[in-house]
Amino acid sequence: MRILEPVPLTRSAFSAFGEVIELEGARKIPINRGLTTRYHDLFTIDCGAEGGHPIVNVFRTDPLPLPHRVEVMERHPVGSQAFLPLDQDPFLVLVASQGDTVSAEDLVLFRTNGRQGVNFYRNTWHHFQIVTGQRRDFIVVDRAGPGDNLEEQSIRGSALIEDDAGA
Amino acid sequence: MRILEPVPLTRSAFSAFGEVIELEGARKIPINRGLTTRYHDLFTIDCGAEGGHPIVNVFRTDPLPLPHRVEVMERHPVGSQAFLPLDQDPFLVLVASQGDTVSAEDLVLFRTNGRQGVNFYRNTWHHFQIVTGQRRDFIVVDRAGPGDNLEEQSIRGSALIEDDAGA
Repeated sequence: MRILEPVPLTRSAFSAFGEVIELEGARKIPINRGLTTRYHDLFTIDCGAEGGHPIVNVFRTDPLPLPHRVEVMERHPVGSQAFLPLDQDPFLVLVASQGDTVSAEDLVLFRTNGRQGVNFYRNTWHHFQIVTGQRRDFIVVDRAGPGDNLEEQSIRGSALIEDDAGA
Repeated sequence: MRILEPVPLTRSAFSAFGEVIELEGARKIPINRGLTTRYHDLFTIDCGAEGGHPIVNVFRTDPLPLPHRVEVMERHPVGSQAFLPLDQDPFLVLVASQGDTVSAEDLVLFRTNGRQGVNFYRNTWHHFQIVTGQRRDFIVVDRAGPGDNLEEQSIRGSALIEDDAGA
């Protein structure tokens, strides 16, 4: 059983899986007579080539009971998916590379710094949303349209998210 | 001088100007083994017909000094613009109908209930973002692409947002 140790989320560490959504490093444009700073175009919405369009949703998510044995990963083959937290607490992001199969050794567990969101590239394997502590809300930008946009698969081997991974 | 009195933001009262973004009344889909409720597709992103695409930004906005004399309104002819607050405080939304000119008598000042966002239809005349109290962050979904997406005009007559309008 592989024990997953969370690592800090950074743009470089996450670059194979998607984009980190954060104000640091964003293009800043002063507008509204100087009262507003526009942090411009924070991530790339990808709706594939099959006629999809982006939609904005809220995900209200209860905590995942820990410890949690990771059994299934999912991916969205025709659209990116972005998560922007509506609060300032860190959350966990579990991803794997874009190959056809996922093994326990492929998994990478990130913990955000509380001011970050993530945008999964299409085809990035990821675990369904992991919330610890208390129920939380996220703005989610993903895709609607033709085609099947959800694949799931059981991972090879076994991996565990421990009790204190979210702390 | 017309004194603008804020009225509560509701879907019906706002229907000529745009959409109210709120969880009440949204389509709810249980996902992630029941841990998550997906409030699905909360508003309509409109990027016009000129090849634009949606972008997601953060607006960090300082308070507008009150009282404020309304002089200029703006509109975006080729794209909708949505504001989703990252906190739970009410904010003010000043709009007018879609005609070619705006008079003080056309203005409607709304106050949100703290759990709402707004999505302006393209061509809806609106005031630049009005924040009272303290600096606040909003997720803003609007449009990038070819064409001029900003018009401004001076209003006819005069109107005032009073000191206590945000309270």
